[in-house]
Amino acid sequence: MTSNVRVAVIGIGNMGSTHARTLLSGSIPGAELTAVCDMRASMEAWSREHLPVSVAFWNDPEELMQSGTVDAVLLATPHKDHARQAISAFHHGLHVLVEKPAGVSTREVQEMNDAAAAAPESVFAIMYNQRTNPVYRKLRDLIASGELGEIRRLNWIITNWYRAQSYYDSGGWRATWSGEGGGVLINQCPHQLDLLQWTTGMMPSRIRAFCQFGRYRNIEVEDDVTAYAEYENGASAVFITTTGEYPGTNRFEVTGDRGKIVIEHDRLTFWRLREPEPVFNERYQGAFGHPECWQCDIPIEETETGHPGIIRNWIEAIREGTPLIAPGAEGIRGLTLSNAMLLSTWEDDWVTLPIDEQRFEDHLARRREESSFAGDAAGQESMPADMSNTYK
Amino acid sequence: MTSNVRVAVIGIGNMGSTHARTLLSGSIPGAELTAVCDMRASMEAWSREHLPVSVAFWNDPEELMQSGTVDAVLLATPHKDHARQAISAFHHGLHVLVEKPAGVSTREVQEMNDAAAAAPESVFAIMYNQRTNPVYRKLRDLIASGELGEIRRLNWIITNWYRAQSYYDSGGWRATWSGEGGGVLINQCPHQLDLLQWTTGMMPSRIRAFCQFGRYRNIEVEDDVTAYAEYENGASAVFITTTGEYPGTNRFEVTGDRGKIVIEHDRLTFWRLREPEPVFNERYQGAFGHPECWQCDIPIEETETGHPGIIRNWIEAIREGTPLIAPGAEGIRGLTLSNAMLLSTWEDDWVTLPIDEQRFEDHLARRREESSFAGDAAGQESMPADMSNTYK
Repeated sequence: MTSNVRVAVIGIGNMGSTHARTLLSGSIPGAELTAVCDMRASMEAWSREHLPVSVAFWNDPEELMQSGTVDAVLLATPHKDHARQAISAFHHGLHVLVEKPAGVSTREVQEMNDAAAAAPESVFAIMYNQRTNPVYRKLRDLIASGELGEIRRLNWIITNWYRAQSYYDSGGWRATWSGEGGGVLINQCPHQLDLLQWTTGMMPSRIRAFCQFGRYRNIEVEDDVTAYAEYENGASAVFITTTGEYPGTNRFEVTGDRGKIVIEHDRLTFWRLREPEPVFNERYQGAFGHPECWQCDIPIEETETGHPGIIRNWIEAIREGTPLIAPGAEGIRGLTLSNAMLLSTWEDDWVTLPIDEQRFEDHLARRREESSFAGDAAGQESMPADMSNTYK
Repeated sequence: MTSNVRVAVIGIGNMGSTHARTLLSGSIPGAELTAVCDMRASMEAWSREHLPVSVAFWNDPEELMQSGTVDAVLLATPHKDHARQAISAFHHGLHVLVEKPAGVSTREVQEMNDAAAAAPESVFAIMYNQRTNPVYRKLRDLIASGELGEIRRLNWIITNWYRAQSYYDSGGWRATWSGEGGGVLINQCPHQLDLLQWTTGMMPSRIRAFCQFGRYRNIEVEDDVTAYAEYENGASAVFITTTGEYPGTNRFEVTGDRGKIVIEHDRLTFWRLREPEPVFNERYQGAFGHPECWQCDIPIEETETGHPGIIRNWIEAIREGTPLIAPGAEGIRGLTLSNAMLLSTWEDDWVTLPIDEQRFEDHLARRREESSFAGDAAGQESMPADMSNTYK
């Protein structure tokens, strides 16, 4: 492909407008921002003022996608619109880069994935920019290469998402079942829920979770979660998150039968066993002995490329067939964890994966009926902005 | 009281013989070791060889306690004998220092506590020597004095209890329902389960736990535990332990509404909020702001006095009425947590505290019936030795 990919950004809130500027900056070779789209009329004036005249403004995503003026769309709309808009884009033969989370429920995201599978010419990616974070890339490398051995335990304490009540009060849609379809899991944690499965290559077989709704703030949705998960190989995991504490913690500990890795404060430490634990256990005949263990500070030398890295990779995939860092179809995995944690809490019971989508949607529908937010969310800011502005 | 307290150590395995030597060393003013007792005939020869002739050897605890030759007994027998022996001691008007854990089930420990309450002249203590560890004393101080504010979350990852199969194979009673009545919770974790409640002054209202039995080793009992607990004030806790991993972790994180404390690697760090989080939340009107936070390295200047410290304190309490560091009646608290975690797993459901003792005992009785260990445990080593030899 020699000509530039004509890209439209749909949804130009905080996040979408940042992506638009990235595309205009020249840092994405082979891509050209030719259009933006936002259903909020006020954004047309913003667009006229801040974007070159070469960038067309559209008010209706469907009309834009039908127009034949773009090859690819970057969806930075509220996540509950992602699936519907992506499906439409695939029908029009467009490439899609969707912001995270992929959607609200796995059912709609599965429909999006099905539509993507039926449009194999369309390159479908998701904005999991934390997959470019070298510390998590290194963890994935150490696991995939077998350095850590078979995984036994995952403990992620990710409680550094502090939000005051004023944050929630800043938009009527925020932290409502109708507006967002969830709380800390859907708004703040999509990266960690993806990294939990992406770095390890494992999805749990069942989950038992304990969400607390409005524990710290006057909101409808969960602002505190403790989840326990079990995996087919016998491994177990704990995932703890909240928006109500300060300063919070971000500590991811992974134990394998060849040692332990801890990621905290942007450092990765590997306690490496000289011989695998099962080998030691087999030969050892004493009482309180243990395998020889080396504390290794692992160099982190790559640079995080962030959102521009994901956009660049998506464009390269379109133009040159480069493998995607974050294939769009993988967005369902982190969302499955999120949906399962809510469902387990609502039913006060185990949830086996894959989850029963109908049960999840039934529960969610009841909560949406009673939700304080009755709008259609067309006027809301693009929600993924929250993470981008604050994620470290 | 001017005369020395005449002390007998009952059960002279690893732990009991250590206590006997401590009493003989002169480091416990006002106490005199006048007798030891062990049901294993072989220990009489050991006693003759290693102890002064002034120390009488008894084979039967009951006869010793009836003899009128001692004022106080230190029970270092297998923990399933603790309650029965302590009750007998109280009936004979003796003071009691019992090793941890207090017993196997809360029912028998409650009976022990009732007998102690009916013998108010007897000074009853428990060997929670980790209560003399200055890092946990400091944590307790910071919580009790209000520095940390109201507690919101406790996360204790205590997975550094590595035991190879050869450890379990070294005694037929080890890690059996009949021999020990539990695994990592009853043998390795009594200190942490006590410190969890002692440092915070809080017991949970309900627990949902996930024990795995023989996950890493060929044993009957639990060698892997993840427990979630909720407290009346809304706080939650996670407790994670295992004997199957190396190098493991010992990290205790406590979050309050005035900051966060982490104890790891024998250091205590306090992230102190300049104003309480609820006060900040009330006044703050922005989006992503947070309370001002100071990272404080807290000096740990006291010295850990360990087992001798607990014995000394018990003797001082007997002689001078000094308040006990570890009142014996408090042993039921950590054991309640342990019993609740097993019961929750067995019933695959929540357990509300105080636990239903009958249900716990019924479950345990069924497992004892099928237990591989049929002995009466009279020939076993004193189990608490495991912790003392290896803690930290």
